[in-house]
Amino acid sequence: MTQWEDRDARRTDAQASYLDVMTTPGPGPQYVYYDAGVVGFVFGEMWSRPGLTRKERRWVTLSCVGAADATVPIESHVYAAMKSGDCTLEEMDEFTLHFATQMGWPKGQAVNMAVITQGARVAQEAGEPARSPDVLLWAEPTTPDARRARGTAAYEDVMRAAAPDARTAFRGLGYLDYLFGEIWTRPRLTRKERRIVSICCAAAIGADRETEAHLIAARDSGDLTYEEVQEVVLHFAVYLGWLLGSKLDDLVVSVWEDAD
Amino acid sequence: MTQWEDRDARRTDAQASYLDVMTTPGPGPQYVYYDAGVVGFVFGEMWSRPGLTRKERRWVTLSCVGAADATVPIESHVYAAMKSGDCTLEEMDEFTLHFATQMGWPKGQAVNMAVITQGARVAQEAGEPARSPDVLLWAEPTTPDARRARGTAAYEDVMRAAAPDARTAFRGLGYLDYLFGEIWTRPRLTRKERRIVSICCAAAIGADRETEAHLIAARDSGDLTYEEVQEVVLHFAVYLGWLLGSKLDDLVVSVWEDAD
Amino acid sequence: MTQWEDRDARRTDAQASYLDVMTTPGPGPQYVYYDAGVVGFVFGEMWSRPGLTRKERRWVTLSCVGAADATVPIESHVYAAMKSGDCTLEEMDEFTLHFATQMGWPKGQAVNMAVITQGARVAQEAGEPARSPDVLLWAEPTTPDARRARGTAAYEDVMRAAAPDARTAFRGLGYLDYLFGEIWTRPRLTRKERRIVSICCAAAIGADRETEAHLIAARDSGDLTYEEVQEVVLHFAVYLGWLLGSKLDDLVVSVWEDAD
Repeated sequence: MTQWEDRDARRTDAQASYLDVMTTPGPGPQYVYYDAGVVGFVFGEMWSRPGLTRKERRWVTLSCVGAADATVPIESHVYAAMKSGDCTLEEMDEFTLHFATQMGWPKGQAVNMAVITQGARVAQEAGEPARSPDVLLWAEPTTPDARRARGTAAYEDVMRAAAPDARTAFRGLGYLDYLFGEIWTRPRLTRKERRIVSICCAAAIGADRETEAHLIAARDSGDLTYEEVQEVVLHFAVYLGWLLGSKLDDLVVSVWEDAD
Repeated sequence: MTQWEDRDARRTDAQASYLDVMTTPGPGPQYVYYDAGVVGFVFGEMWSRPGLTRKERRWVTLSCVGAADATVPIESHVYAAMKSGDCTLEEMDEFTLHFATQMGWPKGQAVNMAVITQGARVAQEAGEPARSPDVLLWAEPTTPDARRARGTAAYEDVMRAAAPDARTAFRGLGYLDYLFGEIWTRPRLTRKERRIVSICCAAAIGADRETEAHLIAARDSGDLTYEEVQEVVLHFAVYLGWLLGSKLDDLVVSVWEDAD
Repeated sequence: MTQWEDRDARRTDAQASYLDVMTTPGPGPQYVYYDAGVVGFVFGEMWSRPGLTRKERRWVTLSCVGAADATVPIESHVYAAMKSGDCTLEEMDEFTLHFATQMGWPKGQAVNMAVITQGARVAQEAGEPARSPDVLLWAEPTTPDARRARGTAAYEDVMRAAAPDARTAFRGLGYLDYLFGEIWTRPRLTRKERRIVSICCAAAIGADRETEAHLIAARDSGDLTYEEVQEVVLHFAVYLGWLLGSKLDDLVVSVWEDAD
């Protein structure tokens, strides 16, 4: 019998997938939210799909739970990302900084807090002392002109398009100088990883123009294939809902169709 | 004197409405947020309006507090929904599953947690043991083709339109097979109730195309009259703000005007 | 050496700015989220900018942390706003009411709770008993016709445009009568302050039409100069992210360009 023919085998497989991803046993079937939802569908069918690595699925998930301000899921996914060995403490810290630029520092604060507490928990369970990450400090101080040149070059590399005019304080100091010049140029997360995070965050809060710009750049740079981006959409929909998923799916199809 | 002529009578009526809806006494007038806001306007003027049943207003409210990630209001409204006898534990569990598909599992988690804790509280106050809901398990396993056929048929029944092409992983496996085929076909919430939840969730996160599609389907299926949908908008605006309310109101007017 | 040439001086200045704004010492450099983010950029570069008063920057910040449902930042910024002497308890209460009309009462609840607890903390630290604000009660009861006239007049004054038809329950009772007639006409926050809050809230949840209407009214009424609105955008982007900031920046540029 296949998974589709045997309810018990389907549930057993789903529980095994939950344990594998979350590193703790999943909840039982006492609520339909668990049975038909979290365990049956999310872990039984979604996490085991091909097309993205498990680590890439973690960035989608972490972006979405952070965007949703979901305290308990933030903690459990931050914990599982490190406990499983998929992500280091340094990568989680770098993710927090990138996420904070996308969604604002207040939403970043909840993720940072979880990285601190869950990092300590993982260390304790391994019999090691809690530690701070090995910090890569902020960009060297430089002149305003050098900052602008660095931001403009980074924008063009990341977005595969001419940089916008720095006609407002935001567009110059915030967007070009800091976001592109001082965040996107940092190591520890690949451009593909930062891209996945940025697409999920932009789609999470309805920044359609930014979402589309990142999809186009992902396509043109080769950061994401059409198969990969479809998996991003499906995984995103699980964590932020079918309504936003549907909107992102439409954008993806229009961007990839434009290329044909 | 009418309510409009007597400040004291107005406040007394508002406090009585608060007690009736929330099943606990309302806060006093020590903050303008309470006096001119929560008690005076929300309970004094909104909950007592005609056009929707109190149970229907609860689905609007629960969708909005869930979308807003508002921990304390989620708890107090989940409690009041069950304590008042308006909603059973099984209906609340089914709502949580439907809500999770609209807004993602992380936001569903906070609602699920409140259903568990507040369900136990209601049981304890009634002198009964806490219990799990009587679970209606997930759809029987079936083949991918049968799943697609079921999802397509459900989409056409619910949305009153031809099903979209399953051209991406999301649109097929996520949207048609699971959301329509395995969620909308479940019992315990009526199609009208699921519609109200879906409209509120879609409007909450700016999924305009989905909002409009549900409004058109609500109109064409007879799920909501123009009077009813106006009350949905007003109640939604109270719980997610005048800004999103204004946007939803514009959509409603354009959909109902198109029909004339 | 200038700030741009000396890393240590840059960090010292940033820590001093943090202490000045937040009234408590900032976190150290152990996480890049702090070093390159919160302290280095947000407090080192953003709060010290000209163009808005510190009190005005607080309204931007409070609107954004409230919109983001960020529990710890809500508490720390509500505390700092009162502890610094920038905002009175009465102003914070009035802000909560205005914010609740923009984002819904559930999100207002978290702000109200912080005003209560942090107000008590500030009083205790000053050796004073905790107190409730001096409440300005709700609008005097009046007839439906007088309410409509009051709301219509307030709308036209605030929005610098003809009031919309009250063709739905929301547009009449909710939008004109209550929001404009009974909230915007209240004292304690200036029209400019309510405008800043409304723009930030509208941009936070993607109510583009409302955002644009407030930007036009801000421009035409003289509530905000082009320099000031640019600072609102940059400060907003810090607290709700570059993605929404980018969208608001585009709207601002198009509104101010239309005027030329």
